[in-house]
Amino acid sequence: MVEFLVRMNNAITTPNFSLNSLVNAGRMDIACRCISNAIFLSYSIRKNVKIYINLNGPPNPPVTICFDSNNLKNVTPDERNIGSHIRIALKKVKEDMEMKSEPGITVSKKSFEELIKEKSKNNFDLYYLTKNGKDIRNFEFGENSLFILGDHKGIPKKTEIFLEKFVKDKISLGKIEYLASACISIVHYEIDRKKY
Amino acid sequence: MVEFLVRMNNAITTPNFSLNSLVNAGRMDIACRCISNAIFLSYSIRKNVKIYINLNGPPNPPVTICFDSNNLKNVTPDERNIGSHIRIALKKVKEDMEMKSEPGITVSKKSFEELIKEKSKNNFDLYYLTKNGKDIRNFEFGENSLFILGDHKGIPKKTEIFLEKFVKDKISLGKIEYLASACISIVHYEIDRKKY
Repeated sequence: MVEFLVRMNNAITTPNFSLNSLVNAGRMDIACRCISNAIFLSYSIRKNVKIYINLNGPPNPPVTICFDSNNLKNVTPDERNIGSHIRIALKKVKEDMEMKSEPGITVSKKSFEELIKEKSKNNFDLYYLTKNGKDIRNFEFGENSLFILGDHKGIPKKTEIFLEKFVKDKISLGKIEYLASACISIVHYEIDRKKY
Repeated sequence: MVEFLVRMNNAITTPNFSLNSLVNAGRMDIACRCISNAIFLSYSIRKNVKIYINLNGPPNPPVTICFDSNNLKNVTPDERNIGSHIRIALKKVKEDMEMKSEPGITVSKKSFEELIKEKSKNNFDLYYLTKNGKDIRNFEFGENSLFILGDHKGIPKKTEIFLEKFVKDKISLGKIEYLASACISIVHYEIDRKKY
């Protein structure tokens, strides 16, 4: 599995947002583009990819939504479609229980920190994408890798300190700071180039 | 300059489309994501990038819209915002005349072939992105490069034959066929990695 975890600082945690204004739902547009780039290829859906979107905006944070590429149905690469699936997931949130929202989409009240601990226990190699990391081209990634990244506001300092205990390494894509969604395309690309 | 030209097979050439359904405007969502990935970085807009979107859908093809990163204003990376600027441009189309639509955005009735000939005359190195091309990692790109790519339906065979006379080389990003928008992110990334 190649997995991604995007920590969204302000993305809202209610389904009461308009698909006509994803930007004003705490930059839900960023979450949608990240999901699109994690999942889709030109004519197909990637196999064995999961992306977790961790929402920390009002009114009821945290919420974590997972898209699992192996089971998705009726999801298309455009922001509006993906936003509609996020909205459906946000209608199904329950305390203390992971809920299946639609095929391949689950939602829970898991915090960023809980998810990191869980993945770490489940033998995932955790990599934090940051400009101060080591060059991605120097890495060989194992069977189960989780790539952690922030939204346009980045990962808060105290969360970075928390992460240090769990991540195998910090990884950089070079000198340029790309859109979160582009980072995901580039990580896939670098892994593809090593594999094929 | 790094420039991109995306040939859209069916993207419509009237402003009478809904921002709520970019997909049904001949996959205008793809055009929007390509523009977003060509232009935007995490906290800023790239310098010296142009992207041409060549629309060949009904009712009045061809139309070519250009976004010039050095002059853009009020454009944000989300599909809906970019779609709204495409719609404004489509309201300004005139026969036989390139029109300024908004700062950094121009629109004309130029065909794909006309644009290719013009760029070729203006000393651009033209590269066609295709799975059968040579590995992008073997290239050093000059001052002025134009990267040509198709939408989800690809470039028609006869257009490929036309291109052969003008392109400096065919370029591949490896074995995987990525979304057009992801191809743009990857081309930028490969150029960045050589430069910085």
